[in-house]
Amino acid sequence: MPAPLVSRRDLAFLLYDWLDAPALCARERFADHSRETFDAVLDLADQIASDHFAPINRLLDTDEPRFDGERVVTPAALKVAVRAYCDAGLLAAGFDHDAGGMQLPRVVQRASELYFNAASVGAGVMCLTPPNASTLLLHATARDRARYVPALLAGRFSGTMCLSEPQAGSSLADIRTRAVPQADGTYRLFGNKMWISGGDHDCVENIVHLVLAKVPGPDGRPIPGTRGISLFAVPKFLVNDDGTLGARNDVAVAGLNHKLGWRGLPNCAMNFGEGRHLVDGAAGAVGTLVGTLHNGLACMFHMMNDARIMIGNVAAGLAYAGYLHALDYARTRTQGRLPGAKDPAMPPVRIIEHVDVRRMLLQQKCYAEGAAALVLYCARLVDEQMTAPDAGTRAEASHLLDLLTPVAKSWPSQFGQEANSLAIQVHGGYGYTRDFAVEQFWRDQRLNPIHEGTQGIHAIDLLGRKVRLEGGAALEALWRRVAATVDRAAAIGGEWRSAAESLEQWRLRIVQTVRTLHAAGSLDRTLANADAFLEAFGHWTVAWVWLEQALVAERLLAGAAEADERAFLAGKQQAARWFFRRELPRIGPLLDALDALDMTATEMQDAWF
Amino acid sequence: MPAPLVSRRDLAFLLYDWLDAPALCARERFADHSRETFDAVLDLADQIASDHFAPINRLLDTDEPRFDGERVVTPAALKVAVRAYCDAGLLAAGFDHDAGGMQLPRVVQRASELYFNAASVGAGVMCLTPPNASTLLLHATARDRARYVPALLAGRFSGTMCLSEPQAGSSLADIRTRAVPQADGTYRLFGNKMWISGGDHDCVENIVHLVLAKVPGPDGRPIPGTRGISLFAVPKFLVNDDGTLGARNDVAVAGLNHKLGWRGLPNCAMNFGEGRHLVDGAAGAVGTLVGTLHNGLACMFHMMNDARIMIGNVAAGLAYAGYLHALDYARTRTQGRLPGAKDPAMPPVRIIEHVDVRRMLLQQKCYAEGAAALVLYCARLVDEQMTAPDAGTRAEASHLLDLLTPVAKSWPSQFGQEANSLAIQVHGGYGYTRDFAVEQFWRDQRLNPIHEGTQGIHAIDLLGRKVRLEGGAALEALWRRVAATVDRAAAIGGEWRSAAESLEQWRLRIVQTVRTLHAAGSLDRTLANADAFLEAFGHWTVAWVWLEQALVAERLLAGAAEADERAFLAGKQQAARWFFRRELPRIGPLLDALDALDMTATEMQDAWF
Repeated sequence: MPAPLVSRRDLAFLLYDWLDAPALCARERFADHSRETFDAVLDLADQIASDHFAPINRLLDTDEPRFDGERVVTPAALKVAVRAYCDAGLLAAGFDHDAGGMQLPRVVQRASELYFNAASVGAGVMCLTPPNASTLLLHATARDRARYVPALLAGRFSGTMCLSEPQAGSSLADIRTRAVPQADGTYRLFGNKMWISGGDHDCVENIVHLVLAKVPGPDGRPIPGTRGISLFAVPKFLVNDDGTLGARNDVAVAGLNHKLGWRGLPNCAMNFGEGRHLVDGAAGAVGTLVGTLHNGLACMFHMMNDARIMIGNVAAGLAYAGYLHALDYARTRTQGRLPGAKDPAMPPVRIIEHVDVRRMLLQQKCYAEGAAALVLYCARLVDEQMTAPDAGTRAEASHLLDLLTPVAKSWPSQFGQEANSLAIQVHGGYGYTRDFAVEQFWRDQRLNPIHEGTQGIHAIDLLGRKVRLEGGAALEALWRRVAATVDRAAAIGGEWRSAAESLEQWRLRIVQTVRTLHAAGSLDRTLANADAFLEAFGHWTVAWVWLEQALVAERLLAGAAEADERAFLAGKQQAARWFFRRELPRIGPLLDALDALDMTATEMQDAWF
Repeated sequence: MPAPLVSRRDLAFLLYDWLDAPALCARERFADHSRETFDAVLDLADQIASDHFAPINRLLDTDEPRFDGERVVTPAALKVAVRAYCDAGLLAAGFDHDAGGMQLPRVVQRASELYFNAASVGAGVMCLTPPNASTLLLHATARDRARYVPALLAGRFSGTMCLSEPQAGSSLADIRTRAVPQADGTYRLFGNKMWISGGDHDCVENIVHLVLAKVPGPDGRPIPGTRGISLFAVPKFLVNDDGTLGARNDVAVAGLNHKLGWRGLPNCAMNFGEGRHLVDGAAGAVGTLVGTLHNGLACMFHMMNDARIMIGNVAAGLAYAGYLHALDYARTRTQGRLPGAKDPAMPPVRIIEHVDVRRMLLQQKCYAEGAAALVLYCARLVDEQMTAPDAGTRAEASHLLDLLTPVAKSWPSQFGQEANSLAIQVHGGYGYTRDFAVEQFWRDQRLNPIHEGTQGIHAIDLLGRKVRLEGGAALEALWRRVAATVDRAAAIGGEWRSAAESLEQWRLRIVQTVRTLHAAGSLDRTLANADAFLEAFGHWTVAWVWLEQALVAERLLAGAAEADERAFLAGKQQAARWFFRRELPRIGPLLDALDALDMTATEMQDAWF
């Protein structure tokens, strides 16, 4: 029997025992929902992920998509899986009933996605389709919404986001793709885009690219920097108003990127307007403006922030999958004997009996479940931001989400990588072979600290911008929530009060560090060790998330009679203990370096390397 | 132009400015050598590695060895490379003139190997041949020495070590391979061996396997545990006394392991005595005893300790290769602008100008050069152990080597992995593609914390055995050397005295930690966090190695006039600064947990996961 993808008890713990997702059903948007409908969605996700996605994960890795010169061809099994996913309504689950969706809360949707992330990230050709449709719904013209969104949400079309260019990478100010206005109100786009996930594939009828490009300003030249960027919807095939497909647009795959992991998901270099497919006899990819002119980045950020939380969830899913595979292996593989019991006539023990193996499993549990909890917490904030009855709560959720997005993207990526490495280590030599799944999880995971903003970019975002957002309001909102946790722990007393006191001590350190850094006198000095701040702040945040879980477990233990349930709750608390005893103290040296305004890297010179 | 494999200036710094390798030439064994002959070997290694190995590294990764049912077939280019390596005399470089070697000091030999480790670890089909030959020279019969060793050292034969079995992994007590004595004094071996690097391939005429197996005891049953293990030489083809090949022996490849990295190097499951190749009409692989009966592990440990330092060197080479590739990329790739200079009309900067990129390069420099320095230090100890004029010095070197071997194997493996991950990160999305070399280095590196003893096994070896070796004599020997470093730093004063004081403070902490752990009352408590001790002790040891380098640089700076040389020395000192400011303090939380006898992992229960 294959290892489960995600612990269902854990998901129920996070959604129901901790985040009180059923409370959302009191709101009009979610009135048709209940814990039963949430469970049904999780069941469905588990079943489809287990039946259709997990079994093809290795196949997608070995039978990579290939470009036949015209289109990108993927294995037939991927199409079956994608169809099962879309037909079950999971693609559109979060969207309005009117749009064919389930109006599912984001927190439940993200929980259901964990199954797919654990099963096969390489199968994610549709993963940018919901944020793409959501961006169109918010910013596109009525005509484009009608032409594109229903087809996207039905899974007949898929969506991409086209930001990067070969020469520009993360530096969007330097993109060169041009959008030239036409007499009929459309634009013609010319340029090269890079790293386009799902840029082409054969699982859908059509692909809607959301493309950042620059329109010439009043003087005929594009406005320099990011201010000149606008957003365009550019379909692979033009779409008529009745929804039928029209001419092939002037968008072409330039080539596929051959990756370390995520090999199932075609990642393309794309050419717009190279004249390969003339439309009405002319070169140029036909596109329509999304949102207002020169406001492209703002429109795209809606999609990017969503995608960032999504990457955190992918990282959590991969960490989770590796953890459960390693756990399964450690429970069945026998080898060696315990210290002090070296009688070779005794049978070997299961390796989970070795303390170092148990340590590696416990660390993975901390990282995987901690990452999942952090991401679901953020998803719950999205629900608050969108549906909380009062404006104050919505604003607070929005601030918290702004603050935590770089953490929810980066922490799972960094420590998920660590978890996946430990999963290999638990398997020993076998973990290094392609006969076991864990090496692929580890390769897949390695993309997460890179795409949707590298760790370095999120570090600057967090320290340079987010901690000062709205005059520090976001940070204050987080402090208030943590204070509430600390108060609850204090009321319980004992070890959790001690943990809470430690959390509070470290919080005061972080407050002081932020103050020191922002009084450093120059941006160079403030941001010199932004990476250390991101890691320290992330680790502290996850410690809080673990304390929250420990307190929930403490509450439930009072009424838990069954051995399985008591064991599950004891495991939550032991993981929280590990995090407070072993993980949280690791931020000390990071904060020390930040407080000292360490300039060692800044002062290192090119010639000295 | 491809990135260089290793910095030659760094090798010269380590060998000549620090470890005073030329001083060895005063000894009889090395009397034919001089700095000039050392340089000639390094030149040769650089040239062959650059011309023949680095260019085929990707090919070996994609065109994996295949098993045709009879033998393992490798790409033709590998044979050319192996031939160039052997014909240049590099395979036998460390062996006696009489054996066709160069009598090269081990420290110079390891330095020359770094080029090959940086160029292509997958090409290492001959890597176990020197330790195999060396074990035979020490322990085999005169007849076997004559039959095997010259052919091994000429590269006509290659050698393996066959320890693990599918059911036993690292637990050698549980091996089942049987060696049945024959009337003619030979043995017939029956059993399955796993993870045999170079177990079969087509680059040589014959392969000599050194195989651990159990001979039935007086009662007809094998002695249980490791005491019953003996060592045997088992050739693929029997070898006549005149050196010609005889019958095919009953040794067969059961299959190839398909690995995450090191794909060029065939790793085999082997069957001994399955009856596929009958010898004189009977099944059983013909072997001869190496060393005395039931003393196999002791004989093999000679080879294993050598292999462990070799793995540390492989890890250092991979870290080095990744670092220099990332440095090369960071110096040429342009992207983005510096904080506070966001004018989009300005051209983008080279990414090495971004402090976070420079930080990632500096960390890689610390790990790669620190690992290389640690391994070369140990290699220098091997030379002392073998050739120092007085017995006291030889004994001290031997103790230090025992103590440092788990560190020299594990630290480069762990932090080399970190370095290779940073090399990917510096490349951004491009680093995640197979168009760049860094993803392969990262995959290759992942084996090093597993083979030749996992991190967990070395942690137990270090804390459970090595720190108490000879009543703590090994540790005392290390303390004496560190004290000498601290004295020299104190005499210089300034920042290096401060660094030395910090090193000494941490040393006292470690002394206290060792005392606490060994007074913990039970082996379970002593070893509960052995992994943390290995990491802390390793990081502290490398800090010492960096202080040593900083002091050498300080001395040389006094007489250095050329800008290049001054920049190189400044880089050494800046890396040492990073290590003392940012790396060394990371051991604090590890030692805290050790001192607290943290039992969190021990107390975690199977059912709680």
